[in-house]
Amino acid sequence: MSDQIEKAAQKGAALVIGAGDATGGAIAKRFAKGGLIACATRRNSDKLKPLIDEIVADGGQAYGFASDARKEEEVIALVEQIERDIAPIEVMVFNIGANVPCSILDETARKYFKIWEMACLGGFLVGREVAKRMVARGRGTILFTGATAGMRGSANFAAFAGAKHALRALAQSMARELGPRNIHVAHVVVDGAIDTEFIRENFPERYALKEQDGILNPEHIAENYWYLHTQPKDAWTHELDLRPWMERW
Amino acid sequence: MSDQIEKAAQKGAALVIGAGDATGGAIAKRFAKGGLIACATRRNSDKLKPLIDEIVADGGQAYGFASDARKEEEVIALVEQIERDIAPIEVMVFNIGANVPCSILDETARKYFKIWEMACLGGFLVGREVAKRMVARGRGTILFTGATAGMRGSANFAAFAGAKHALRALAQSMARELGPRNIHVAHVVVDGAIDTEFIRENFPERYALKEQDGILNPEHIAENYWYLHTQPKDAWTHELDLRPWMERW
Amino acid sequence: MSDQIEKAAQKGAALVIGAGDATGGAIAKRFAKGGLIACATRRNSDKLKPLIDEIVADGGQAYGFASDARKEEEVIALVEQIERDIAPIEVMVFNIGANVPCSILDETARKYFKIWEMACLGGFLVGREVAKRMVARGRGTILFTGATAGMRGSANFAAFAGAKHALRALAQSMARELGPRNIHVAHVVVDGAIDTEFIRENFPERYALKEQDGILNPEHIAENYWYLHTQPKDAWTHELDLRPWMERW
Amino acid sequence: MSDQIEKAAQKGAALVIGAGDATGGAIAKRFAKGGLIACATRRNSDKLKPLIDEIVADGGQAYGFASDARKEEEVIALVEQIERDIAPIEVMVFNIGANVPCSILDETARKYFKIWEMACLGGFLVGREVAKRMVARGRGTILFTGATAGMRGSANFAAFAGAKHALRALAQSMARELGPRNIHVAHVVVDGAIDTEFIRENFPERYALKEQDGILNPEHIAENYWYLHTQPKDAWTHELDLRPWMERW
Repeated sequence: MSDQIEKAAQKGAALVIGAGDATGGAIAKRFAKGGLIACATRRNSDKLKPLIDEIVADGGQAYGFASDARKEEEVIALVEQIERDIAPIEVMVFNIGANVPCSILDETARKYFKIWEMACLGGFLVGREVAKRMVARGRGTILFTGATAGMRGSANFAAFAGAKHALRALAQSMARELGPRNIHVAHVVVDGAIDTEFIRENFPERYALKEQDGILNPEHIAENYWYLHTQPKDAWTHELDLRPWMERW
Repeated sequence: MSDQIEKAAQKGAALVIGAGDATGGAIAKRFAKGGLIACATRRNSDKLKPLIDEIVADGGQAYGFASDARKEEEVIALVEQIERDIAPIEVMVFNIGANVPCSILDETARKYFKIWEMACLGGFLVGREVAKRMVARGRGTILFTGATAGMRGSANFAAFAGAKHALRALAQSMARELGPRNIHVAHVVVDGAIDTEFIRENFPERYALKEQDGILNPEHIAENYWYLHTQPKDAWTHELDLRPWMERW
Repeated sequence: MSDQIEKAAQKGAALVIGAGDATGGAIAKRFAKGGLIACATRRNSDKLKPLIDEIVADGGQAYGFASDARKEEEVIALVEQIERDIAPIEVMVFNIGANVPCSILDETARKYFKIWEMACLGGFLVGREVAKRMVARGRGTILFTGATAGMRGSANFAAFAGAKHALRALAQSMARELGPRNIHVAHVVVDGAIDTEFIRENFPERYALKEQDGILNPEHIAENYWYLHTQPKDAWTHELDLRPWMERW
Repeated sequence: MSDQIEKAAQKGAALVIGAGDATGGAIAKRFAKGGLIACATRRNSDKLKPLIDEIVADGGQAYGFASDARKEEEVIALVEQIERDIAPIEVMVFNIGANVPCSILDETARKYFKIWEMACLGGFLVGREVAKRMVARGRGTILFTGATAGMRGSANFAAFAGAKHALRALAQSMARELGPRNIHVAHVVVDGAIDTEFIRENFPERYALKEQDGILNPEHIAENYWYLHTQPKDAWTHELDLRPWMERW
């Protein structure tokens, strides 16, 4: 697709907020492979080193940033730095979750707030900052990682469902405002267990489904983010769901 | 309905959080008329005096409380005080909104947070505190005032839609967890302008539709809250919408 | 409510399509008790006799009609007859279901069609015919009985879910077109087992939940239809759900 | 993707029901380009000749069939013939619409039925027939073209919205039943005007947006169908929407 090649040629930046070992890292790699300069963030930048090294070893460009998406000043400074020193941000992916179930009777205000702050406020802050730059340039892609909890509020998930519902509302609201300014905003609903250390250690029976492709491969998730980024502007997707073939839903 | 009469006879309390001059006040009056002791809150208790006086003059019982639903300690103390000094809380209505539109490009972190804090966090805090008491007694009703913004994220409404989506997720999550413990949790989607000072002063053309019943009468909204509270337990409604006959939706 | 009394005084007709032994019959009784002339239909009018007798014995007015809602001519004739010989139709309730699960692999075209014809086409035919009269008079209420299958398509429910989804689309489309002409169109989502002979005989364990109010009482369902009919026009509900307190959803 | 190449190598068939000049034809071309044997249907097979010729000229394989998807025997015979004489059906796309708005007051039973028969019954019939074969082989893809009318019932769209809601219910029900049998069922919500003769002639102002990419390019729609078909089984999408960047929604 010429549009895609053109984008890569420009060597714009792909900012991935929450570039963890599974999905976020895979997304950073996918965008680097597509020709963009991966700018990956985690709260602890030491943990980013293997990812950055891998991208560079594969011939791509990547930078790691220690950044807390919940801190307005840090987010403003991060976007400023990338735009000034590296490249215009062509795509931003917000990929921070905080799935901690709890009975409503036992949920603390502190945790209820922290889950919202991580899974939603950070998305707003980074989304707003990159949107300002993208609107000025008249183009860009903003992608939010959603979850089933963003579609329905299940028992014991008041905090996480609230944060993910709010994030989905943010994505919709931004899409409706920014679409006509040529910013593609999309929301990916990941419905199922992902192939991560966390699942392997805590849900071994679930993890065993990997042999049957019963849990999501982070690289396959990442491919969908790349796909959304490269859709031509007459046919944009705002929301798509992803789940393993054998998942009950 | 004998169930309803029985409840009134017990003289339980109806806690109305955000008992403003329109909807919240009308709800407090309706529950007082139904035989419950209205416990009405606003941040400024002076403004509650006319409401309390009116309920008492009509032969009902009512108390006003200055309380900030965003402050965990205040909420805990409020629920403690009512349960200790007045009566068991049979029904709680969370009725605080914060509808302030803004472009995503101009929205501040402070306002994005404040809207969530008012329209969602408060609902969580009061909901949790009353749920603890209700679960111990094995009965109760918890009602949340929702809005169209809880169903879809429109342009320029990222903050309000986020808060209302999160509130709707809270209501669903609580309903699924607490329904089987005989707590009726419901979410009312108010879709349209309400007959308030605010609409009269700021949207006079909209307000003029009042002559044709084109804006919502707070007393009619309140009647639906009472109705939800008195539904028998084999046929509970979790969500209903309310809008004027002529509203476009 | 004066509006309600006025309606009763006018002795308009309440047309209940599918007035079976459970929900439909209870709805006919409720509207007769509210002062309307119940016009109840079933395909076999003999089965209506006990219902008509009971309403009349209770001091109400009622007529039974053998009518097949799937036959356009029969529907036209039925509405014509009631309007000419009995009274203007103030409210119509469409209450025909056809919940027959089947694997998509085994479903026949004949059954797929018949389920749609019963659960959806009939609703369109009666809805259109009464809407014509109501629009001419500038008022009226049209109520559709929905189901969870109208909200989501589950495995083995392609036919029933399709019919119920289409019925819900009909209700929404009519509400949006006819609301501004003062016709109140609403859709009731019944989610759970109802206290019927069918459940008693085929799902005895489910039926045993009746002692705990775990299945829906038809009279309580009917009360909600009456409630919807009597809502003032500035605060109409289009959709509400009904389920037992202990239902999983 | 090796999976994709493998599929092409197998030279399975892609059955496209409703291969009109715009979307359906583009889908047939895309699957032929991907290595599948395009089997395209229309009610009038003469009109298919240019499409078949174009695919063959481009080095692909294609066959045209006159077939009425509403006729059970024709559908059974069609699937039988392709499976016997051409190749196993690897993917089926149902792409028949029938968007004819009408006031509910004027809608005829005949048209209400015909719209459902075209836009929904045909999807059931072809879906069931190919599902039987795919389940026996333990793989396959079934794609339905949806519309905004499948998500909400607008004024004057009772018939079309009903058919599209029912089709969406069919897609969901099939996905939930057949996913665990390795059949990928998906529903594409096309929201916006497509670059067709119909739009060009009837909505010239709308068509003029083509210069700004404001209407959907059929080839771009088709690319998404191909994309869905090639998703690995651990990360399947069931529903995605497509709309031009400047579309209001």
